Order: sequence, then C-alpha cells, then structure tokens
Amino acid sequence: MFARVTIVGVGLIGGSFALALRAARVVDEIVVFDRDPGSAERALHLGIADRIESSIAAAVRGAELVVLAVPVARTADVLAAIVPHLAADAIVTDVGSTKVSVIAAARAVLGDAITRFVPGHPIAGRAVHGPDAAQVDLFRGKRVLLTPLPENGDAVVAQVEAAWRACGARVDRIDATTHDAVLSAVSHLPHLLAYALVAQIADAPDAELKFSLSGGGFRDFTRIAASSPEMWRDVTLANRDALLNDLDAYRAGLDRLRGWVAAGDGDALETLFTHASAARTRLADPR
Amino acid sequence: MFARVTIVGVGLIGGSFALALRAARVVDEIVVFDRDPGSAERALHLGIADRIESSIAAAVRGAELVVLAVPVARTADVLAAIVPHLAADAIVTDVGSTKVSVIAAARAVLGDAITRFVPGHPIAGRAVHGPDAAQVDLFRGKRVLLTPLPENGDAVVAQVEAAWRACGARVDRIDATTHDAVLSAVSHLPHLLAYALVAQIADAPDAELKFSLSGGGFRDFTRIAASSPEMWRDVTLANRDALLNDLDAYRAGLDRLRGWVAAGDGDALETLFTHASAARTRLADPR
Repeated sequence: MFARVTIVGVGLIGGSFALALRAARVVDEIVVFDRDPGSAERALHLGIADRIESSIAAAVRGAELVVLAVPVARTADVLAAIVPHLAADAIVTDVGSTKVSVIAAARAVLGDAITRFVPGHPIAGRAVHGPDAAQVDLFRGKRVLLTPLPENGDAVVAQVEAAWRACGARVDRIDATTHDAVLSAVSHLPHLLAYALVAQIADAPDAELKFSLSGGGFRDFTRIAASSPEMWRDVTLANRDALLNDLDAYRAGLDRLRGWVAAGDGDALETLFTHASAARTRLADPR
Repeated sequence: MFARVTIVGVGLIGGSFALALRAARVVDEIVVFDRDPGSAERALHLGIADRIESSIAAAVRGAELVVLAVPVARTADVLAAIVPHLAADAIVTDVGSTKVSVIAAARAVLGDAITRFVPGHPIAGRAVHGPDAAQVDLFRGKRVLLTPLPENGDAVVAQVEAAWRACGARVDRIDATTHDAVLSAVSHLPHLLAYALVAQIADAPDAELKFSLSGGGFRDFTRIAASSPEMWRDVTLANRDALLNDLDAYRAGLDRLRGWVAAGDGDALETLFTHASAARTRLADPR
C-alpha cells in the first residue's frame, strides 16, 4: 500500500504504528526521525525503523505517508519543518490527543498542503512510553478517531483509514470539537486527577508507608499517572477550555460529596455510589 | 489447624478466605451464614461452604474461628448477635476496611470476649463482589494488616496470623489509627474520586458517546467505581475524619492545578506531572 512511511517521533504510539504497518505488510520502508537520537537508534535496533535520519527533511523526503507522533504543542514547528520537503502527493496524519489545537497549528503552517493533512487520534495507550514500549498489537480492536478537514479529499482520508484498519483498529470519523470535549472528560481529566493523587501521597511525610500499603485498586486508579509528563502538559494546555469545564464540574461534585461525608448522609452517598457502580459495571472491561 | 471455621458474610472476601483455608487443608468444616439466603445457597453450590445455617447463632456454635466479612457498619450488630453463642475459646476476626470504628463496635458489645477479637484487614479486593467473585488465590502474595488489641493474648493473634499465612498472605501488625489514616489516602479517597467521575459522566447528556470513546486508561482509573456501594458507604462514614482530611487536601491540590491550567502554566504542570510520574513508576505494578 505504501512504498515509504515516515514516523516523526518514535515513542509508544509512533513505534507501535510502525510495527503494526510492517506486520500487516502494507509498507515497504519505514523511516524514522526523532529529536532524541537515542530513541531513533533504539527504533532501528528494535526493528521499528528500516532507516533513521538525523534530519527531519531527509526523513520525510519521498514518503507517501508521514505520521506525526509528537507532543501536540510541537505540531506547528514539526509541520513547518517538513512541509518544504514533502512529496507533492504525500499524506500527513497525526496521533495527537487533542484535535482542535492540532488543526489550528496545521492551518497556520501548511498552506495548500492542508488538503493532505488528516488529523487522527488512536484511543490506545499504555502508561509506559518510548520506543521500547511499542507493541505490534497495540491498536488491535481499538478505536481510532479521524477528524477530517473540509479540505481533505475523500481518497486522502481513505488512505489514512486504510492504514489504521491494517493495524487492526476500528476507524470512526468525528467532529474535532466533539472529540476534544469527549476526550477531556474520559481521558484528560482522569489523567489530571491521577497525577494529583499520586503527587499528594508522594508529598506526605509517610509516603513510603502509604505506597507500601496500597493495593490493586490504587494501582489501577493511578496507572495513568506514570504517563509522559511532557505529553500530558501539552494535552492539558491544548484542551484547556474543555478541561476547565470538566474540572469545575468535578470540583463541584466533590464539594457536594464532601458535604454528604461531613453530614454523615449515608443515603446520599449510597445513591451516588450505586449510580456510578451500575454505570461502570455496564462498561465492558476486557481485563 | 481448625476443626470448624464460620464465615459470616460470604461475598468476595469471606468466600475467598474460605476457599483458601480449604485449599491449604487447615480446616475440617466451613460453616457459612449470610443475611441473604441466596448468597449462602450459592456458597454451598460453589463449594465455599460445607454447611450453611439460616440462623447466625447456629452458624457460630462450636466454631473455633469466626470471620466477620460484612459491611463495617454492621459490625456491632453482628458481634452482639453471635457473642452469646460463641464457644469459650472461639477466636473472632474481621476483614473490615476501617479498624478504629470496628474496634469501637467490638468494645461496645463483646465484654470479656474482646480478648479473643483480633481486628484484621486484607489488602486485596476486586471490583466485583458476591460469592461468585471469590477466588482461592485472592490473598496469595497480598498483605494482611492486623491491628491487635492490648487485651489480645499472643496465642490468639498468632492463630489469626497463621490462618492468613495459610492463605498465602504476608501478615503485618499496625496501629489501628495509622491503618485508617493510610488506607484513607490510598484506598478510601480513590474510591470516592472514581465514583464521582463515573457519576459525572453518567449524568452528562452525551454519556453514551463518552463511555463509548473511553479507553484503557479510563477503565483502569474507574475500575474501583464498580465496587459494592453499601460497603463503600460504610467505609466512607466509618473513616470520616481521616477521609475529610485527605479529601480537603486533594481539593486544595485540584484548586492549585486549576489555577495552573487557567494560567497556562506549563512549567508548573510539567513539574507536578513529572513528580507524580516518577513516584508512580517506582511503585511495583504486577500488571
């Protein structure tokens, strides 16, 4: 399907995408660029990359598909750096966790090439990062959301869809603003909440005792707090408005909950817990 | 080791304890009482119980060890119901998630039998409950915390320790107040936070879309929100003071975080995320 795919940023997501495309035999050559030369070398060693380049220009030259897998705040700079070197029919996509900010960055720097930029976001991740965390089956059965632009031709979007389907993903299209609002609630806010709890415990005088007596529930709840700080700093700022909205609703909910705890209102607590428990139980849980 | 063990409350924890004791061949007969006759019948069917009794008095008669595995607010009533029927040398223990409230309940109703009540808490659980959730290896490699009373004789505590060790658990002793303060931070507060988030999303007009686009991180973070509402209502109220303390610290942390998000302070966010990520990464994670 692709003679050459270039991955810009070879961490968990970029690396897994490369491995999955190769396993699906839909690419002849995978070229990798990473701002960290050690990550690029590692990708070569792990068989993620066929070739690595120390210049981003050389990396994207001649590629049919370029995949940006970098923290979202770097989108504009990376697109600006690659656009002069793209082949005339090269397709560019990204994997960023926010889409409105990525689209704004793309519009600001891509010029006519905006027609061939298809924003995307795989709903898949692990709390470990870097090329060593990459897994060939990371996207198998997972959802990938594309937020195509009005400027995108059908064939261009179809190519990106086909690449993700080759990785085993289910691909859907969604409006970028809706995407950001939904992901704020089910992904960005939980990351903030988990980071906040782990920081609070880590700062306690008896942190060591607390961590040592934590069980499986705590480990589940805080697993996402091991995620990449730079990536999540960028996501938090890029989706600031939606996130503040959800965070404020959550704070109001906690204030209410606090009132019930302080008042000893067991009925109100049980009603809330029952409501949440039923909703969570209905949610499929592969584990 | 025990001719007869009686389990009062045959859910996840009581059921798993029975299965583990039997597998370790340290008990001849396991008798089960549950306020829900269906759960008791199910325990018999699942091989958790050798015998079930519809009266708690009949269930505890002649038992060498009685294990309370009931919501903590029921402790006083259950202890009061069994104490007239206990054998003179019967040992009683519990598995409640809070220890100060359980000890107060025991002191209020047990009289001289307080010498043979050893409070305990296994740090093990699953987000599913009831006898069908019981697992023979639930406690293998897990920690069990005992908070022995000054009145407990060494031999009595040693018997309870031995029972848990037979289940594969690592047993430690800890002060009850310290126990409750630590568990508030690493278990009770996370449960509240997870319930609150799931309730918030369930109440949103686009709840279905949000749940459908949630990924593995959300499922991890909210897994504990499927836990027993009645159990967690009781835990919340029983450990109210410690929990309010931690909840208030958490709310103050969220207020700070909100300020950084609103101000676009990426450095402050990244510093917090890096601190939390490092602490969480240091924590062993069997998954």
